[in-house]
Amino acid sequence: MAGWRAIGVIGGMGPAATADFLARLVIAASATSDSDHPRVFVDSNPHVPDRNAARVGQGPSPGPVLTAMARALAAQGAELLAMPCNAAHGWADDIHAAVPVPFVDMIAAAVVETLALRPQRVGIIAVGATLDARLYHHRLASAGVEAIDCDLDIVQPLVTRIKAGDTGADVRAAMAAEAARLAAAGVDVIIAACTEVPLVLNAADAPVPLVDATAALVRAVMAAARHPSA
Amino acid sequence: MAGWRAIGVIGGMGPAATADFLARLVIAASATSDSDHPRVFVDSNPHVPDRNAARVGQGPSPGPVLTAMARALAAQGAELLAMPCNAAHGWADDIHAAVPVPFVDMIAAAVVETLALRPQRVGIIAVGATLDARLYHHRLASAGVEAIDCDLDIVQPLVTRIKAGDTGADVRAAMAAEAARLAAAGVDVIIAACTEVPLVLNAADAPVPLVDATAALVRAVMAAARHPSA
Repeated sequence: MAGWRAIGVIGGMGPAATADFLARLVIAASATSDSDHPRVFVDSNPHVPDRNAARVGQGPSPGPVLTAMARALAAQGAELLAMPCNAAHGWADDIHAAVPVPFVDMIAAAVVETLALRPQRVGIIAVGATLDARLYHHRLASAGVEAIDCDLDIVQPLVTRIKAGDTGADVRAAMAAEAARLAAAGVDVIIAACTEVPLVLNAADAPVPLVDATAALVRAVMAAARHPSA
Repeated sequence: MAGWRAIGVIGGMGPAATADFLARLVIAASATSDSDHPRVFVDSNPHVPDRNAARVGQGPSPGPVLTAMARALAAQGAELLAMPCNAAHGWADDIHAAVPVPFVDMIAAAVVETLALRPQRVGIIAVGATLDARLYHHRLASAGVEAIDCDLDIVQPLVTRIKAGDTGADVRAAMAAEAARLAAAGVDVIIAACTEVPLVLNAADAPVPLVDATAALVRAVMAAARHPSA
């Protein structure tokens, strides 16, 4: 009962990725009854301003909406926050500054798991806003690891199709082909650095180890949510 | 953008059923981009007092916790509420009375879909609290339809196993056997009247038409959430 802190999810980017994240939290709790689970507050808000448009100066910043969501979740009782959207972490500093509760950073969680694999070059499968903000590049570079971008002309349309509900064989094959291309280009680890990507790409589909940023965030959140006394 | 009312989910009973419900809302939106989805607020609260214990007088009523959750979701911006737990609908009147926004009743939604099949006798696969409160029996009786209880000695332990994460072949086979037993007992429709049941029982596993109460609630919620102007 008292074994977990309440988790707040700044979600809806996209809605399917948030539903996937919630389902993974449930599995990760390894609970034997309802009361063994953490309480989870989710705000699945599909109206957060577009991250890619904001990054290239063609739309409003999502920062104010994200911080308002964070504040409301904390007010509702969330004792720590997480945001299952890589690109939105370009505004993570705004969230950190807005709320008194811990914000578990998805990029940091995925980088920790990536560096544990001791890579030299890491492929980043992500959307434009994540690549443009160098969210992964900066952190990997600090550890002396080179980051290689995916081909946005391939990945961005695939993510759009996944957001429209298409997780079929064509999309899966195309995402696996992009992973194969990155491996052929010399990366020894790939990060699925967009929450839509693991909806169509599994470790078995990649020719090199795949770090699933969503899975890394689930593990980091559950570690942070567990009370020291539990 | 303006096509949907915001949905509040009184959840966590159990957490996996709530995650399943959220995933089904995402699919039901048939959206082509993030912004075509409704906003969804979820309170997945695994600490709602046990419905079965309360019903038999061996635990506190979940009513006060459920109404507090409903009020908080409405305060957060939810314009209609839903609760993906059949048994908790024994306290639906408390929720109706507590909030000014519509509460979309799961039992009513499932009964509408059941009666559309023009059954004579309906099998109810549910937990003790749902059967004891006659949630389905009363509504079906008003329409002149007889309700036949599942064997609780079979179903209650299966639901407990599903809540513990076991949705494996044994649990699936046992639930299908219970559906077959009800059909052999003369029911012409079965209602999956516990949100854990559709996690292991599909229409293809039942020898008579199966009404999935979770699916009925998703359809009713999405119909209620769509703005008349949309």
